[in-house]
Amino acid sequence: MYVVKSPLADEDLKTVSEALQGALVDLVDLSLVAKQIHWNIVGPRFRSVHLQLDEVVDSARTHMDTVAERASALGVPPDGRAGTVASGSGIKTSPAGWIKDADAVGTMVDALGSVITRMRERVKATGEPDPVSQDIFIGITADLEKHHWMFQAENA
Amino acid sequence: MYVVKSPLADEDLKTVSEALQGALVDLVDLSLVAKQIHWNIVGPRFRSVHLQLDEVVDSARTHMDTVAERASALGVPPDGRAGTVASGSGIKTSPAGWIKDADAVGTMVDALGSVITRMRERVKATGEPDPVSQDIFIGITADLEKHHWMFQAENA
Amino acid sequence: MYVVKSPLADEDLKTVSEALQGALVDLVDLSLVAKQIHWNIVGPRFRSVHLQLDEVVDSARTHMDTVAERASALGVPPDGRAGTVASGSGIKTSPAGWIKDADAVGTMVDALGSVITRMRERVKATGEPDPVSQDIFIGITADLEKHHWMFQAENA
Amino acid sequence: MYVVKSPLADEDLKTVSEALQGALVDLVDLSLVAKQIHWNIVGPRFRSVHLQLDEVVDSARTHMDTVAERASALGVPPDGRAGTVASGSGIKTSPAGWIKDADAVGTMVDALGSVITRMRERVKATGEPDPVSQDIFIGITADLEKHHWMFQAENA
Amino acid sequence: MYVVKSPLADEDLKTVSEALQGALVDLVDLSLVAKQIHWNIVGPRFRSVHLQLDEVVDSARTHMDTVAERASALGVPPDGRAGTVASGSGIKTSPAGWIKDADAVGTMVDALGSVITRMRERVKATGEPDPVSQDIFIGITADLEKHHWMFQAENA
Amino acid sequence: MYVVKSPLADEDLKTVSEALQGALVDLVDLSLVAKQIHWNIVGPRFRSVHLQLDEVVDSARTHMDTVAERASALGVPPDGRAGTVASGSGIKTSPAGWIKDADAVGTMVDALGSVITRMRERVKATGEPDPVSQDIFIGITADLEKHHWMFQAENA
Amino acid sequence: MYVVKSPLADEDLKTVSEALQGALVDLVDLSLVAKQIHWNIVGPRFRSVHLQLDEVVDSARTHMDTVAERASALGVPPDGRAGTVASGSGIKTSPAGWIKDADAVGTMVDALGSVITRMRERVKATGEPDPVSQDIFIGITADLEKHHWMFQAENA
Amino acid sequence: MYVVKSPLADEDLKTVSEALQGALVDLVDLSLVAKQIHWNIVGPRFRSVHLQLDEVVDSARTHMDTVAERASALGVPPDGRAGTVASGSGIKTSPAGWIKDADAVGTMVDALGSVITRMRERVKATGEPDPVSQDIFIGITADLEKHHWMFQAENA
Amino acid sequence: MYVVKSPLADEDLKTVSEALQGALVDLVDLSLVAKQIHWNIVGPRFRSVHLQLDEVVDSARTHMDTVAERASALGVPPDGRAGTVASGSGIKTSPAGWIKDADAVGTMVDALGSVITRMRERVKATGEPDPVSQDIFIGITADLEKHHWMFQAENA
Amino acid sequence: MYVVKSPLADEDLKTVSEALQGALVDLVDLSLVAKQIHWNIVGPRFRSVHLQLDEVVDSARTHMDTVAERASALGVPPDGRAGTVASGSGIKTSPAGWIKDADAVGTMVDALGSVITRMRERVKATGEPDPVSQDIFIGITADLEKHHWMFQAENA
Amino acid sequence: MYVVKSPLADEDLKTVSEALQGALVDLVDLSLVAKQIHWNIVGPRFRSVHLQLDEVVDSARTHMDTVAERASALGVPPDGRAGTVASGSGIKTSPAGWIKDADAVGTMVDALGSVITRMRERVKATGEPDPVSQDIFIGITADLEKHHWMFQAENA
Amino acid sequence: MYVVKSPLADEDLKTVSEALQGALVDLVDLSLVAKQIHWNIVGPRFRSVHLQLDEVVDSARTHMDTVAERASALGVPPDGRAGTVASGSGIKTSPAGWIKDADAVGTMVDALGSVITRMRERVKATGEPDPVSQDIFIGITADLEKHHWMFQAENA
Repeated sequence: MYVVKSPLADEDLKTVSEALQGALVDLVDLSLVAKQIHWNIVGPRFRSVHLQLDEVVDSARTHMDTVAERASALGVPPDGRAGTVASGSGIKTSPAGWIKDADAVGTMVDALGSVITRMRERVKATGEPDPVSQDIFIGITADLEKHHWMFQAENA
Repeated sequence: MYVVKSPLADEDLKTVSEALQGALVDLVDLSLVAKQIHWNIVGPRFRSVHLQLDEVVDSARTHMDTVAERASALGVPPDGRAGTVASGSGIKTSPAGWIKDADAVGTMVDALGSVITRMRERVKATGEPDPVSQDIFIGITADLEKHHWMFQAENA
Repeated sequence: MYVVKSPLADEDLKTVSEALQGALVDLVDLSLVAKQIHWNIVGPRFRSVHLQLDEVVDSARTHMDTVAERASALGVPPDGRAGTVASGSGIKTSPAGWIKDADAVGTMVDALGSVITRMRERVKATGEPDPVSQDIFIGITADLEKHHWMFQAENA
Repeated sequence: MYVVKSPLADEDLKTVSEALQGALVDLVDLSLVAKQIHWNIVGPRFRSVHLQLDEVVDSARTHMDTVAERASALGVPPDGRAGTVASGSGIKTSPAGWIKDADAVGTMVDALGSVITRMRERVKATGEPDPVSQDIFIGITADLEKHHWMFQAENA
Repeated sequence: MYVVKSPLADEDLKTVSEALQGALVDLVDLSLVAKQIHWNIVGPRFRSVHLQLDEVVDSARTHMDTVAERASALGVPPDGRAGTVASGSGIKTSPAGWIKDADAVGTMVDALGSVITRMRERVKATGEPDPVSQDIFIGITADLEKHHWMFQAENA
Repeated sequence: MYVVKSPLADEDLKTVSEALQGALVDLVDLSLVAKQIHWNIVGPRFRSVHLQLDEVVDSARTHMDTVAERASALGVPPDGRAGTVASGSGIKTSPAGWIKDADAVGTMVDALGSVITRMRERVKATGEPDPVSQDIFIGITADLEKHHWMFQAENA
Repeated sequence: MYVVKSPLADEDLKTVSEALQGALVDLVDLSLVAKQIHWNIVGPRFRSVHLQLDEVVDSARTHMDTVAERASALGVPPDGRAGTVASGSGIKTSPAGWIKDADAVGTMVDALGSVITRMRERVKATGEPDPVSQDIFIGITADLEKHHWMFQAENA
Repeated sequence: MYVVKSPLADEDLKTVSEALQGALVDLVDLSLVAKQIHWNIVGPRFRSVHLQLDEVVDSARTHMDTVAERASALGVPPDGRAGTVASGSGIKTSPAGWIKDADAVGTMVDALGSVITRMRERVKATGEPDPVSQDIFIGITADLEKHHWMFQAENA
Repeated sequence: MYVVKSPLADEDLKTVSEALQGALVDLVDLSLVAKQIHWNIVGPRFRSVHLQLDEVVDSARTHMDTVAERASALGVPPDGRAGTVASGSGIKTSPAGWIKDADAVGTMVDALGSVITRMRERVKATGEPDPVSQDIFIGITADLEKHHWMFQAENA
Repeated sequence: MYVVKSPLADEDLKTVSEALQGALVDLVDLSLVAKQIHWNIVGPRFRSVHLQLDEVVDSARTHMDTVAERASALGVPPDGRAGTVASGSGIKTSPAGWIKDADAVGTMVDALGSVITRMRERVKATGEPDPVSQDIFIGITADLEKHHWMFQAENA
Repeated sequence: MYVVKSPLADEDLKTVSEALQGALVDLVDLSLVAKQIHWNIVGPRFRSVHLQLDEVVDSARTHMDTVAERASALGVPPDGRAGTVASGSGIKTSPAGWIKDADAVGTMVDALGSVITRMRERVKATGEPDPVSQDIFIGITADLEKHHWMFQAENA
Repeated sequence: MYVVKSPLADEDLKTVSEALQGALVDLVDLSLVAKQIHWNIVGPRFRSVHLQLDEVVDSARTHMDTVAERASALGVPPDGRAGTVASGSGIKTSPAGWIKDADAVGTMVDALGSVITRMRERVKATGEPDPVSQDIFIGITADLEKHHWMFQAENA
């Protein structure tokens, strides 16, 4: 079904839409992982990290909406379903059960690190074919790297 | 790891925690399915349903937080990870690609219907062992049935 | 015209929908009676009761919307038209013309008393067939009994 | 019971108070009819018209309060009780049960048309005896004619 | 000093500017009298009338600004100084010292009555020469008559 | 294409719709001229007038929406396109390039003066055929004359 | 002095009013104990727990108002005076002087635990005689158990 | 346990900390007494005084927090527990059961009078040793004397 | 009529009440003078000073309310009527008609200067008899001296 | 008249200022075209598209302000007058009279498409001479392409 | 250049202006030191202290504005430039690079302690010459001592 | 002390962190210089420029926080201490004492000009090594150039 006409040439569109779909999956998973730890964290830093995680969730939810709607605007239907996320996410660690606060912070450092590495590749890949999408990836990277710093600072 | 002391007896706790875990999975998936359609819907009713779906997303996100934190409060760690959701959700239809507005509405009628049926069973199961959790399920059911009516009314 | 599929069995639906329709009529009338007195009250307590009555109006309007939409959600079209209200309301006193403040308060004590009695019967009737609707009636009763106390306290 | 001294001469007061009482009845009924359709509408335009009707309800409630309190300010007790409204309203159509969206819009076009015609007569009748009340009727007419246009545009 | 060019002919301007200057003096004084009673009222209705008086003060302050700036807009400098108000106000009663609540209400009934009578004359006088200023006087009259009703209702 | 049924007779409609269309064109142009000066003004009063001009823009945009929707409500499609505005506006001066603050204020005095003169003619023309539209023109005139005074006061 | 007529039979009223009075005393004391620790806590977690305790205070104050006004609404005057609270509270530990953060958290775990146990008994006792009061106790229990979880998680 | 280093000399600290502890006890009790009457008042002035009492509660709660945290800032742990309040408060009257509105107001006049007398002594005692604490007592006194006036005016 | 019992001895009360009454008169007049200039100012700085004057009006209105209610709280009825203000104000200049911006600023420098001088005398006079009233005068002086600086800076 | 010193070299400035002036004209026209359709649209989707168009108007107005002020910041006076817009806009279709909803959506798809194509050229042209202006064009393009998608989805 | 006339005698002015200038320098530096630590803190308490430091920054920025504008109001130009702050601040410790949370808290205890000591001297010095400035120093001291307590409590 | 792992290679990190540290120093100084003039400006434009300068302060404070936290996120501790700012700022003019409004504006033109020139160099330098930081510099430049234009326009 043809729906939205893309302003990009086919070759460029392929590159950009793969970047957007990859980012969508990472960001949905980031929101779920952060919520998971938000609910299961224990230890003296419980309240502080519990609140901090909801800020990550808010960031991730905002960014996932932006990249999904960017894909739609380019004429490519985004896929953010649970199964797609479960199989395609760049986040490798996914803890179950109660988690101590220091481990919780460490898990977030790893999760954010994985997503950031992939997001920086998307910044590189999309600059030529679509500077508009690139600008979105740059903004997301800046935000995630700020979260990343804060979790690293906490476990220093 | 023992963390939170439950106010419920073991038998009751088992019943209630299964209900809460089941509800969590359904609600996380509901939020993802509604977002998926929010991004992929096309047709004359695009804008109206696009906005309506975000209200379902808001409801689902609020309710998933409530049930997950209720599980924690009863001493049972909740599991809302992508893999758990992908395999355990009560929602059976999960469309990919552009979706026409009437089909979008129909999908939501089905998805909400599945979740409501299971939620009503949870209301029944938990009244005896934990009226506090039951009250939460009752409130969620009322809200989901209101969304359910609206989507049905739209396809009438 | 079939529109919305009810989650209740036929027998249960009959009980619950009668309770909802009865509550709707009572609440619409309560909003009209309270406004009527809001406009016609005179006496030293004018301003205090005038403002208090608008809080009753707000409560009644919120609750009428809740019960009407609950009926729709159960697949039963609600009826809140003027004629239906005029003939079916449980409020028996309906003053015309200027009304002294003590009489105004007394009228509200009576009106709320009538509605509360019927609402408590609905709480009893619906617990079995639909705890979701019962929970709505419980919440409304709590709110009306609070208003009822305040008007009684004022005429003590 | 004599309460509020009117700034108008008796003859003028008679004309103006009839206009105000008539407007009150029309506006209370308009609020009830719009709510009735708000709850019972079905069809693809459900959500859009459902929301639009609540804007009519808000308008009607604001205007009914203005005209009732204007009557009180002129020394004439207003009557907005259900029975008075049921028998005296200028709105002739009053649908029961589910209503298709196009019919819902058509009903609102008719209802608003009836009220506007009578309201314009009140503008004419009150300019001489009380320009203050006339100004209120003019403002109400402007608002109702805007709603009227929108419903007509929707069924065009 | 010539400053602002009037859109009105000289004769019309004279009529309208006298009306505006008279209204300004009345409204400034109304704000001062209402504040005076706000501070000095005693008796069981203290709090209710104390709060109500501040609503009159707000109305009077808003209206005085409107009429003064209207005068400026027509090219006539307004005069709202204490001496001008003390000698030119249409309010005749001006109580000193503690005042019982019923007397406070009575004083406001009289004060508002005086201002309203003069304001209605301004509505009549300005319709022909400047319907824009007339519309302002009509709006002020509607508001003052509403306050007037409320105080009368309280002493009924 | 017939769409909205007018509440006015044909003759009256002709008069009123010409007034509304004329006002629409003037107000759109006023918003563009005020923005133009907002961007190009220089001189010591830059900031003060720069901010003041945005208040004129807000006024003009609000009023243009009111008159265009009033035309629609009367059954006459409004025309606010750039070409129509460029050829039909009552504003004669239209500066290009940087403009000194005193000249900017002078230009606004002239532009507002032209629009006000035409608006007052519309007040006169529409009182008989449609007092509802007249009331709108009266309100717009009051607002524009207030802006007019302020710019005149600044160049005094 | 007879004041408010109870909607409950005498026997039921006795059960329910005892539950409400007991809850009132517990909740007032909870608010005082939480404030006491809010002011006296020291240690690395000072700020986090200091803020968290004010959320408990807010909860306790809201709930105490609800149960006290519910007692009044049932016709039974509530008693929340300092002496009554000091002698009747279910909270046994009441620390004086500076308190280390871990001890502060432990004290709150104990205090909340005591209140929750008694509140669950009230849920059981009131379901039959007054489901409206029971619903209030259920809501309070849900909220307190959430606070309880958080303090337990912090000392895990 | 030594915690916070005081900026005051020992002698001064003793004087100031006694004043702060005394004020804390008075203010906690004032908040409880005002709430007690808020719940138990009856009579025609019910609503007005009921609302007014919550403003006293808000004041008392704000001030108790200020003085307790001031004590902590000076290195002295404050004591606001129920038992301490019950035995040490300067408020002597403490009514149980329903209370008529005039008596309610009289009780508040007495309670505020007692607290104000003691607070003025604290103003005198602390000016020399700690003008910072004195400034806090001055502000509290101003606020309490305003409440005191209002209740006196109501029973005049 | 005896109403409010003063916390001050007679001698002290005399000193303090004269200070409060004097301040009231000055502040009411300051609000009227500032409004007068707000309406009549012309010149290039029109808008800037026009807005600045409304901030003085807001300050003066807030402070007049504070001192009048302080007088009432001390048992002395305040007098803020137009005649009292016209004869007793410490502000000597009172311009009529249009006023150039530099003159407007100069007038405000003088008016504020007069009020500040008298307010500083009140600070001195009341420190001994009533530090609570003194604190109010200190706060008002700080605010007026800030306004004073700004107007001086503008004419530098 | 020389006013603002540009941070760009002459050659670069020429490129960038042409891009900004072109964007300004397109965006002003976009705001007018969207308003025109906002007022003239008819058909079942009236309300939905009517509201959606105002979001385009808001976007266009915000962006036009940004590009015009960017031009000023670079030392080049922007030109957004009606005549300049009428002759220079990149939007070719400009409908008069009532317009059916599907045609309205189609017109917006075309209008946005034209503006986007030109905006992407500006992104390319300005990256080298002024990355700051380029960043503004990128942001505008992202926003317009989102609107473009939505209108396309609606006509799919 | 003479600008603002001081209400103080020369001798008094010297004392007060030195106090204000000293306070200004301390407070600007406090804001910079708190920001410095806000950016460089690491360790488990990172987030909690990071947020707390921004509250110190807000306090310091508000207070520095107050004292600088107070100096201007007294006719003495304040000096808050970087060089003046770097050489004149009363804060002696000024850490560079990452700083562990406990050290961060300790640094703040020291920095606040230094500023408080000097601020208390200013309270003493200014009471006689200018109680208005003294009142400002008292308020700042109260606020800083509250921050001081909290940091001490955290390292206890 | 190693704390935060940088996502950049060493060479790139060196370039980017120098740019960030330089920007931090410039922006802190810009905030101090703007505040300094905010407090010391005199002349007819006092109020207008006084307010405008606080908008520069707000911008500078927001941007300094962004760049400092960006440095932390890249693993480099930022240095914003008074001494570092005093010695390293790119702003050369730093006035003491009262300053006439035209000179104030001229100083801001120079100060902003210096910062902008250096910021544009940072845009160029960081595009290759870190487009995320570059994007931050681009946004800051756009904002500063807008402020720059406004001050230039004011002295034109």
